[in-house]
Amino acid sequence: MKQDTKHIIIEAGARIIHRKGYNHTGIQEVLKAAGVPKGSFYFYFKNKEDFGLHVIDYFETMVLGMVKPIVSDTSLSPLGRISGIFDYYIHLFEEVNYTCGCPIGNLAQEMGDLSDAFSSSLQSAVKNMARVYREILDEAQSQGEFPSSLNTEETAEFIVTSWHGALIKMKIDRSIAPLTLHKQIILGLIRA
Amino acid sequence: MKQDTKHIIIEAGARIIHRKGYNHTGIQEVLKAAGVPKGSFYFYFKNKEDFGLHVIDYFETMVLGMVKPIVSDTSLSPLGRISGIFDYYIHLFEEVNYTCGCPIGNLAQEMGDLSDAFSSSLQSAVKNMARVYREILDEAQSQGEFPSSLNTEETAEFIVTSWHGALIKMKIDRSIAPLTLHKQIILGLIRA
Repeated sequence: MKQDTKHIIIEAGARIIHRKGYNHTGIQEVLKAAGVPKGSFYFYFKNKEDFGLHVIDYFETMVLGMVKPIVSDTSLSPLGRISGIFDYYIHLFEEVNYTCGCPIGNLAQEMGDLSDAFSSSLQSAVKNMARVYREILDEAQSQGEFPSSLNTEETAEFIVTSWHGALIKMKIDRSIAPLTLHKQIILGLIRA
Repeated sequence: MKQDTKHIIIEAGARIIHRKGYNHTGIQEVLKAAGVPKGSFYFYFKNKEDFGLHVIDYFETMVLGMVKPIVSDTSLSPLGRISGIFDYYIHLFEEVNYTCGCPIGNLAQEMGDLSDAFSSSLQSAVKNMARVYREILDEAQSQGEFPSSLNTEETAEFIVTSWHGALIKMKIDRSIAPLTLHKQIILGLIRA
């Protein structure tokens, strides 16, 4: 029961933080959205930062979980899977009218240079996102689908970081075009 | 004199916003840093958003102004100039210990999907940053230094957006490595 309430608070907080950012999100607002009595926050979390770290874990699980069916779809070629991941996220951002962006990228931008604990938690989340691409690129390379001259680890990191940049452009352009451009250039880059 | 005070407020505000973000920056804090009496803010700006729009203009002029000597250095080849711009910014972020990031990218992330006026002002700033690269790439293409198969406008946009993403990674890694990786991959991509 306690764990359920804790999870409900994290979920409600994640939704608000994704939309408004961490600094702009108040604890009372989260508890209200979660339908949890005021004052119970410190029963579940040491402080706002501790809560924020739980939200990062939640975001990481969510973002990676979403594309898991595509990542493990071996009926697709490795680069077909990467293309599929892009298409999945592109569709998702079309659904929400190009708002919000990647919750991990947003927090990295907002909090990355302000708090050590946030910084290392976000680092790990980005690393795990890049690992997904890296494993696919390793497979692509072994099948000759990815140039042997390129480093899979570096390329995977670049896919994630440049994606975060494309999401920033999506927000100000209120258009999906920066994401489709990202897909086009990355697929051009990684095709052997 | 009035214009001087206005500019002093904008400069002080820009420094604080670059470090803390727009939402987290208070008007009183800006006036205090500027050494300007409380209450004079609304003499110069309609509201905080109006002030924010002036700060965006200031940032744009600053970011573009910094690299102007490299952009106009015709003793360098076009791609040499692009490489020089990257090196300039990389050195700059080393000096400030990988903090702050691009002020335009930060505001785009923070405010891009929240305010129409911010959104269109940031769009124009990013467009002008991309135009710098585009003009160099056009020159490179006419000299056979850039593949004729690539679109210079799209590539220029991608250089700017992926750079913003690399800056996010720089912040959480507290390392220059994401910027040097960006340089390496972009130069690999655009070399004919």
